Amino acid sequence: MPVPYDVIKKKRDGKKLTREEIEFMVGGFSSGELPDYQMAAFLMSIFFSKMDHQETAVLTQSMQASGKSMDLSSVPGATVDKHSTGGVGDKVSLPLAPLVAACGGYVPMMSGRGLGHTGGTLDKLEAIPGFRVQLEDDEFVSVVKEAGCAIVGQTSEIAPADKKMYALRDVTATVDSMDLIAASILSKKLAAGPQSLILDVKTGSGAFMQNIEDSRALAELMVGICRESGRNAQGIITNMDQPLGIAAGNATEVAESIAVLKGEGPKDLTEITLVFGARMLIMAGLESDPAAARSAIESKIQDGSGLERFRKMIELQGGDPNVIDNPGIMPQASGTSELIAEADGTFLSIDTQEAGMSVVVLGGGRQKADDDVDHAVGIDFVKKPGDKVSKGEPLAIFHYNDETKMEVAKKRLSAAIQCGEGEARISPLLIEEIN
Amino acid sequence: MPVPYDVIKKKRDGKKLTREEIEFMVGGFSSGELPDYQMAAFLMSIFFSKMDHQETAVLTQSMQASGKSMDLSSVPGATVDKHSTGGVGDKVSLPLAPLVAACGGYVPMMSGRGLGHTGGTLDKLEAIPGFRVQLEDDEFVSVVKEAGCAIVGQTSEIAPADKKMYALRDVTATVDSMDLIAASILSKKLAAGPQSLILDVKTGSGAFMQNIEDSRALAELMVGICRESGRNAQGIITNMDQPLGIAAGNATEVAESIAVLKGEGPKDLTEITLVFGARMLIMAGLESDPAAARSAIESKIQDGSGLERFRKMIELQGGDPNVIDNPGIMPQASGTSELIAEADGTFLSIDTQEAGMSVVVLGGGRQKADDDVDHAVGIDFVKKPGDKVSKGEPLAIFHYNDETKMEVAKKRLSAAIQCGEGEARISPLLIEEIN
Repeated sequence: MPVPYDVIKKKRDGKKLTREEIEFMVGGFSSGELPDYQMAAFLMSIFFSKMDHQETAVLTQSMQASGKSMDLSSVPGATVDKHSTGGVGDKVSLPLAPLVAACGGYVPMMSGRGLGHTGGTLDKLEAIPGFRVQLEDDEFVSVVKEAGCAIVGQTSEIAPADKKMYALRDVTATVDSMDLIAASILSKKLAAGPQSLILDVKTGSGAFMQNIEDSRALAELMVGICRESGRNAQGIITNMDQPLGIAAGNATEVAESIAVLKGEGPKDLTEITLVFGARMLIMAGLESDPAAARSAIESKIQDGSGLERFRKMIELQGGDPNVIDNPGIMPQASGTSELIAEADGTFLSIDTQEAGMSVVVLGGGRQKADDDVDHAVGIDFVKKPGDKVSKGEPLAIFHYNDETKMEVAKKRLSAAIQCGEGEARISPLLIEEIN
Repeated sequence: MPVPYDVIKKKRDGKKLTREEIEFMVGGFSSGELPDYQMAAFLMSIFFSKMDHQETAVLTQSMQASGKSMDLSSVPGATVDKHSTGGVGDKVSLPLAPLVAACGGYVPMMSGRGLGHTGGTLDKLEAIPGFRVQLEDDEFVSVVKEAGCAIVGQTSEIAPADKKMYALRDVTATVDSMDLIAASILSKKLAAGPQSLILDVKTGSGAFMQNIEDSRALAELMVGICRESGRNAQGIITNMDQPLGIAAGNATEVAESIAVLKGEGPKDLTEITLVFGARMLIMAGLESDPAAARSAIESKIQDGSGLERFRKMIELQGGDPNVIDNPGIMPQASGTSELIAEADGTFLSIDTQEAGMSVVVLGGGRQKADDDVDHAVGIDFVKKPGDKVSKGEPLAIFHYNDETKMEVAKKRLSAAIQCGEGEARISPLLIEEIN
């Protein structure tokens, strides 16, 4: 049996760990036999010495194996999921899951909550009156089977080692290790059981990875881990140099997602939804030709069947399905206020992380994991990089419940936006595919 | 007040810590407010990111400040101590302290026990019947005043943070960090209170630092820490490519130390004693001319006053002073056995770490900190690198109490010695001074 000291030292010295050694450390920590301080030293040595794809895959699998995995064997078709590393206004999961479901795929999605400048899918869905993100396992599987998609939070039985390791990383400055991040994300995603997984790695000022090299490395690592774990995986690096769509908030993002499903969504958000949907259909084996796959997703917007799947999922998860026809039943902010352009010119750039933090300041996100979220508030980014702006025009609209917070958020967003003469440098929406 | 997470992250990211931050971490850990796991992550980040001399000095001072420091204000003269990083046959402290005392210096020495291939001064002294290495503080000071020297173990009140940190390092693979090693050694040495400290950094196959670059770095670091802490310090890098003197063991090393004090010691051991003694007299301000300082030490061998100081110290620390005239009162091994040269040739080299481990195998040292030590056993290295050897001549003599252990030790030492044709490559005894 491995000795903890030797395993820590081996990784500290930059050597490759065996499956037995990694399983021993994760299993021992999960069961309480390996003390916190040895895991802390081990995590810090991973931070510095790094792991290769194979080691990280074993780490992921060990974390997954610390808890339950969903049994999706009764689902009568291909299962496929998407994960995004998160950004501002990234509500893609909401229209995407029902559209893929409408095409015959099954999407068993376990999502997370927002923290810092990025929003979280569960927070958004909870803006819908009655919506439950915590389902029993058999309930989760039955919603997947009936609606074709379910979006839930992870239970305490999913990858408990990850939860325990994350809590330790959070107090020992070992959170921002790419290997540990990838293993943490995927231990939960793999436990949810999809055969295929598409990974949306955001890059840019509003992303966790702000440069393309890191984004590529993370995408390659996550694709590698999935494949080492017997899953079909693909990565796409997408742009997060500006908010995705117009709305950033919770209720406002649900409303925008419904708009996409009605064919009335913003162009960039709709495009990302089509691109990911088409690839998921191909990964699921439901389509083989990219153009046909895209048309299939588009047709489910046009015929409204994506919207019906969303309605069905909401209903089965306890939410009020009337939200589809009347988004106004979600919490509404008490006031609105505009951020006004001070001069004619071009919207040159936006610090998207700061834009996300402006939403947090309003109350729409979390500074700390146990903060409450105000589902009503948010910011509409009515102007985006590249747009011409005229003096006096609104650049953004604040939906607020607290005027003081709104003023702080407005000041913060104002400082994050550059307008002026010249050309905006705009990166393409889809930057790179990792196959 | 600093936040532990931020301090760990700052060091992890290679930044220089402030005095307040370091004191906060060490003080918090010592008092139990900072949990083990944060200290473990902090220690691992020091291992990787390193500290500069100033930071390490503050770390040392914080560890010292966690406990008591000796009050030597009543000592009526200059206090001066020596520290060695340890090796095989390194019994220099035993003849050195009384010789410096005989010249008018005061040597308040806190020493350690052997671990692994290196011996420990306290274990050697405990071969003397009745000798006590644990004295009360006032007893320690009074022995220093009366004999001019005392050699004791550290009490639990000296640098308790070091003890706690060392225990954690021992299980988190953070022992072999030069910064942490230097801080650990010096936190205790500085607490013992000498105004001047000479640092003997051993280099070579039997030393902790096996190459000259690391030895130099450690010597410079330790000298730097002492000076930052207001002490007079000097470093000397000495050779540990072969055992020092002939005897390696406990009782046998005490006997060899007595021989040095009688002017009958081996040449290399006597030379090192003279070199360090002379420098200590100069550091203490008792001599200014190097040649005169050396003569002063030599004269205390010739007139027997060094030997009398040793007798006095032994007596005051509860030991039987008859050991001076009759070393045979110390535990004696039940048998002796020779390792025989198998052919004519030259003694080319010895793996000194393995030589030390052969002593441990005999029972004369420790594999683990709580092992018992057999004070009687040891090895006499009667041939050394450069010596001509004839077939059938003894290379080494084993003093043993257990024949099986002796056979294992002999096999191990045999494999560690190279004899043959050609020239031995012998490094000088004194390699470099760090001023």
